[in-house]
Amino acid sequence: MRDKRSDSQKFARLRSAPENFISDEFVSEVRQHGWDDSRRSFIRKSLMAAGAALAGGGAARAATQNQPDQMITKPRPWSTSLGNPVAFHPYGQPSKYEVNLQRRQSPGLTAVPQASVAFSPLQGMFGIITANGLHFERHHQGWVDVDPTEHRFMINGMVKNPKVYTMDDLMRMPSVSRMHFIECGANTAMEWGNVAVPTVQYTHGMLSCCEFTGVPLKYLLQDCGADFKNAQFILAEGNDGSSETRTISMARAMDDVIVAWGMNGEMLRPENGYPLRLVVPGVQGVSWVKWLRRIEVGDKPWNAKDETLGYVDHMPDGTLRQYTSIQECKSVITSPSGGQALLSTGFYNITGLAWSGRGKIKKVDISVDGGKNWKTATLNTPILDKCLTRFNFPWSWDGSPAILQSRAVDETGYVQPTKSQLVAVRGTRSIYHNNAIQSWQVAESGEVFNVHVE
Amino acid sequence: MRDKRSDSQKFARLRSAPENFISDEFVSEVRQHGWDDSRRSFIRKSLMAAGAALAGGGAARAATQNQPDQMITKPRPWSTSLGNPVAFHPYGQPSKYEVNLQRRQSPGLTAVPQASVAFSPLQGMFGIITANGLHFERHHQGWVDVDPTEHRFMINGMVKNPKVYTMDDLMRMPSVSRMHFIECGANTAMEWGNVAVPTVQYTHGMLSCCEFTGVPLKYLLQDCGADFKNAQFILAEGNDGSSETRTISMARAMDDVIVAWGMNGEMLRPENGYPLRLVVPGVQGVSWVKWLRRIEVGDKPWNAKDETLGYVDHMPDGTLRQYTSIQECKSVITSPSGGQALLSTGFYNITGLAWSGRGKIKKVDISVDGGKNWKTATLNTPILDKCLTRFNFPWSWDGSPAILQSRAVDETGYVQPTKSQLVAVRGTRSIYHNNAIQSWQVAESGEVFNVHVE
Repeated sequence: MRDKRSDSQKFARLRSAPENFISDEFVSEVRQHGWDDSRRSFIRKSLMAAGAALAGGGAARAATQNQPDQMITKPRPWSTSLGNPVAFHPYGQPSKYEVNLQRRQSPGLTAVPQASVAFSPLQGMFGIITANGLHFERHHQGWVDVDPTEHRFMINGMVKNPKVYTMDDLMRMPSVSRMHFIECGANTAMEWGNVAVPTVQYTHGMLSCCEFTGVPLKYLLQDCGADFKNAQFILAEGNDGSSETRTISMARAMDDVIVAWGMNGEMLRPENGYPLRLVVPGVQGVSWVKWLRRIEVGDKPWNAKDETLGYVDHMPDGTLRQYTSIQECKSVITSPSGGQALLSTGFYNITGLAWSGRGKIKKVDISVDGGKNWKTATLNTPILDKCLTRFNFPWSWDGSPAILQSRAVDETGYVQPTKSQLVAVRGTRSIYHNNAIQSWQVAESGEVFNVHVE
Repeated sequence: MRDKRSDSQKFARLRSAPENFISDEFVSEVRQHGWDDSRRSFIRKSLMAAGAALAGGGAARAATQNQPDQMITKPRPWSTSLGNPVAFHPYGQPSKYEVNLQRRQSPGLTAVPQASVAFSPLQGMFGIITANGLHFERHHQGWVDVDPTEHRFMINGMVKNPKVYTMDDLMRMPSVSRMHFIECGANTAMEWGNVAVPTVQYTHGMLSCCEFTGVPLKYLLQDCGADFKNAQFILAEGNDGSSETRTISMARAMDDVIVAWGMNGEMLRPENGYPLRLVVPGVQGVSWVKWLRRIEVGDKPWNAKDETLGYVDHMPDGTLRQYTSIQECKSVITSPSGGQALLSTGFYNITGLAWSGRGKIKKVDISVDGGKNWKTATLNTPILDKCLTRFNFPWSWDGSPAILQSRAVDETGYVQPTKSQLVAVRGTRSIYHNNAIQSWQVAESGEVFNVHVE
């Protein structure tokens, strides 16, 4: 018995969500911030209907192994003709068949796309490294392509010798390369409410991981003679129209912060801060100031715009919690995940990502029954400090409904909370720092949905 | 005293070699295979002349720090206007200022670009990960963009159950992600002769390193019931027009070989084997069969075209050495390197790459006086098995001529040989497996050249 869908549909369905998964209804819903269960049900029903149509009633699923005739009887053009020359793309590009795997904007989130988000397609990604073309974006006034020969980086404030560095000055200095995750503090923000955003691209896609190269900030602070006795904080300032500024403690600045130009072996991309950005391992993305032009050394936090008007936590008692920078331990199953469809019963590799702003990942447990029973996943190596860790877990699907969850533990012993555990402390008015366990429901049809369970 | 060159020239000079570094003379020279020192001298003199012109006589060099006026008096357009929206490139691209950092073909190497090489620009790369757009290329009949929904992978021969897998079949299976280098066996081939190829892009640029994701080949061989008692070898076959085939021992196949679809988090690029290639850690690139369509299990090596007509070592006694697959321990300084120019005296971070097909890198030593004295470099972490390792070494240039070398030692204790040590064993008629120490000469002008020393 063969699957009635075409191979093309199957391949696309397993790896990535369809292009227009975010409906207009959903967009206006997000704009209103009027989240309720009846709206969610509407979205889920639409998806179920679409899924059932694609799956031919949900019944026609079967394995496709052992059909050697397919290969022997039909020689393909690529094996019988001369291919393309080398350096056809002097800078290489993905296959034309991968065009649906790309960053996507959720147009409902902000008024203009210059102050918005483009999410990474985690559902179709592998390992821990994010290919630079798929790195998530979040801008406050749009991205700029800064001329590196004109770019200057200044250190001033409580320093003996204020200095201005060119890119050439910086790139002569001692450098390090480190793999670290970067996550926007607002990642998974929609899940604070009762809306269940349909795909992992939109629930967790403000998350990427690269090998960053640059000069440790401590060397530069030493070079300028920072007043280490009295200074307590630094301010990092970006060179775009929003002049984004963030306060960072001197203790952190002297630890593992990097003034970086490299990203996965090449220069930073313009939308990720070319030619210079701050890398602040373990800390939310807003502090990784892009197009970095200045660091000021001081003795008080600056209470900048993005430390007061935004990037604060609305607590249940009505207070605002400020300067919660660290991204706590978190994990998510990236496949199977919302919007994907299981093609048949049988074996699947459940795979996903775990990370912690406080160090290394120690353990990831998996549940396929909504949290009743847990088994330990295999962690892919190397397991690095403040870096994504890929986990894999073998699962045989028997065709009955299932709820898939992952729960990470970091080296400090911190255990990723359930949503209700998190809400008990934080309430539901927050935007930032949602690190709750994510649940994906596998329906009998094989379709996978985002659900909120206890 | 300021450098008289424009900032633009400086930035470009330090990071990457000019576009037309390979002269027409050099191309015809390579075609002829008529290498001699007088030709090399001609090229070197041309470069010296060009370098002197750029450097304004070689005298006008100075540091450019401490000019804050440059930033304060001239606000740049990118800090005073609205930037570009997110997902402007749904699949991101490098800055327009990085257009010179790209893969380059050396047109003299082969008759047609479909059977040629595009080299990675190591001189401008950082860390150990190769951005996918800069991964080197080597094809035998051009690259093809295979439709993944039509692609099939067969295992046959000495197996109980021959099978044909679709991509969906494979991507459901247990997978691993591993970072490994890939090096063409012919990397650094030109240096066997007396020609000193001008830049590290052309001497060592058939080298890349990615995080690969796929299913361990051993699982597939088990799935098909391979005859482990009698089988000794496998044959891997590609799906392009050249039907490239390579023999691999069963011991290696059951060790760390991966049938891979992922490369730095996304699907393989077409020129690197999309949608499926073999990853054979530590072994020369030709065995990492691209567009992988078949593996046959057998009890004798196949002596295929690319194991007899090519990819054999011409030994001094006239014999041909076959099946030398492993890439022995090797290293190279990527910056400063040939074609670059030091901008002034003072501090430089000497940086480069070390790797071994036999395991991890244990140590890298650096000489700045052509091998008389050696000091140990800092190895960037993590140091991984059969993976590139980035090294850094602090150096203060006093303006006098210097010869920079790196020498790697792997965990087996193997020490990277000098060129004369290698030639004593291998002669000079070889093409493949040149892992000798590379020398870069820094001239008084600051210009850097490839030189052959003992």
